[in-house]
Amino acid sequence: MATQRVPIIERIMDANDQLSLTVRKQLDDAGILGVNIMASPGAGKTSVILATIKALMPEIRVGVIEGDTAPVTIDADKVTALGMPAVQINTGGDCHLDAVMMSQGLAQLDLTGLDMVIVENVGNLICPAAFNLGTHINVLIASIPEGDDKPYKYTNIYRGLDVLIINKIDLLPYIDFRMDYFKQGVELLNPGLITFPVTATKGDGIEAWAAWLKSKIVEQKSKAL
Amino acid sequence: MATQRVPIIERIMDANDQLSLTVRKQLDDAGILGVNIMASPGAGKTSVILATIKALMPEIRVGVIEGDTAPVTIDADKVTALGMPAVQINTGGDCHLDAVMMSQGLAQLDLTGLDMVIVENVGNLICPAAFNLGTHINVLIASIPEGDDKPYKYTNIYRGLDVLIINKIDLLPYIDFRMDYFKQGVELLNPGLITFPVTATKGDGIEAWAAWLKSKIVEQKSKAL
Repeated sequence: MATQRVPIIERIMDANDQLSLTVRKQLDDAGILGVNIMASPGAGKTSVILATIKALMPEIRVGVIEGDTAPVTIDADKVTALGMPAVQINTGGDCHLDAVMMSQGLAQLDLTGLDMVIVENVGNLICPAAFNLGTHINVLIASIPEGDDKPYKYTNIYRGLDVLIINKIDLLPYIDFRMDYFKQGVELLNPGLITFPVTATKGDGIEAWAAWLKSKIVEQKSKAL
Repeated sequence: MATQRVPIIERIMDANDQLSLTVRKQLDDAGILGVNIMASPGAGKTSVILATIKALMPEIRVGVIEGDTAPVTIDADKVTALGMPAVQINTGGDCHLDAVMMSQGLAQLDLTGLDMVIVENVGNLICPAAFNLGTHINVLIASIPEGDDKPYKYTNIYRGLDVLIINKIDLLPYIDFRMDYFKQGVELLNPGLITFPVTATKGDGIEAWAAWLKSKIVEQKSKAL
């Protein structure tokens, strides 16, 4: 009797990673750029998202998925006030979004006519880093008042980034923030990381970030053709 | 045959809660006040702790347990520079401390001669709220640049507080922060919560907070006699 070959299945990815591929395909098929925005609470995720939408309006249409640990629609309301669709996800206390919630969020958005979906992840520098959502671009918003030592303390989230936005630059004169020390930490974890310094509430620096984003949107659209 | 009585055990507390009682007893027996400091990354936990130690020195001796997700001793080094003992706990990526880590941290501190142990929890507004450490006082440090909507978004952590410190008060002139709106949110979740406005890096407001803490230290010592 010939030895029977036993199939060996290696656990290459977990369920979340698996589902994130489905989400990615859904976005790709629709020619939509998916952007995952992460930050500490109060670093200015919503302010950056609002300023970005305004900078790209009316040419680019943006849908927003808002993650929160509580059932509040404070952020989503600000997005719909600009005439863009928004979905609120209440994680029920969980410290991050995952591919399941992302998938459910997308199902609630009419993707027709959208060019980009921005996900506002839960305000947290730890948990969101471990959960792939299927988006194309991982963005972290750091902020000046948080202090210059954050890359050294929250290494995992910095390692996985495609873009870093440094917000609240206007507060630099009032805060002891060593930009060299901060950037040195970032460079150690993520060499050559694309970085945009901004003050979102005043719109300063948003133009460059929005232009970069627009080039990615055009790129994504061309792939879907 | 008489019906046998079946013992019913209700799961009243989980393992972490159970262990936190042991930690609490250890602190009580030593007459040491345990203070758990929670905050978003960069709200100023370390700055408040350093200012507090300075305000209470040399009469009160403080040990500090520093929680971080990465193996960095940036914060612990600042404490030992003041001549107080510090222990660094690396959670290995976990978003909070728990009673096990707290117990291990205490084991590394010489409790003889200490009046207070301050725990600097991991920078996070979600996870730490769910894990009892056995400390006596839960403190949250909110900060002005985080924005005035945080109590509405991170309800669980506000509900469990004994004290709220509002840090970076000196940035109020440069930031659109509605103090009434903020305090209304806090009041809904935790009526009558003791609150100290401070600017830790300048020492402003620390005196009142330190005096309150000192009264609690005296109280705790008198219980151990």
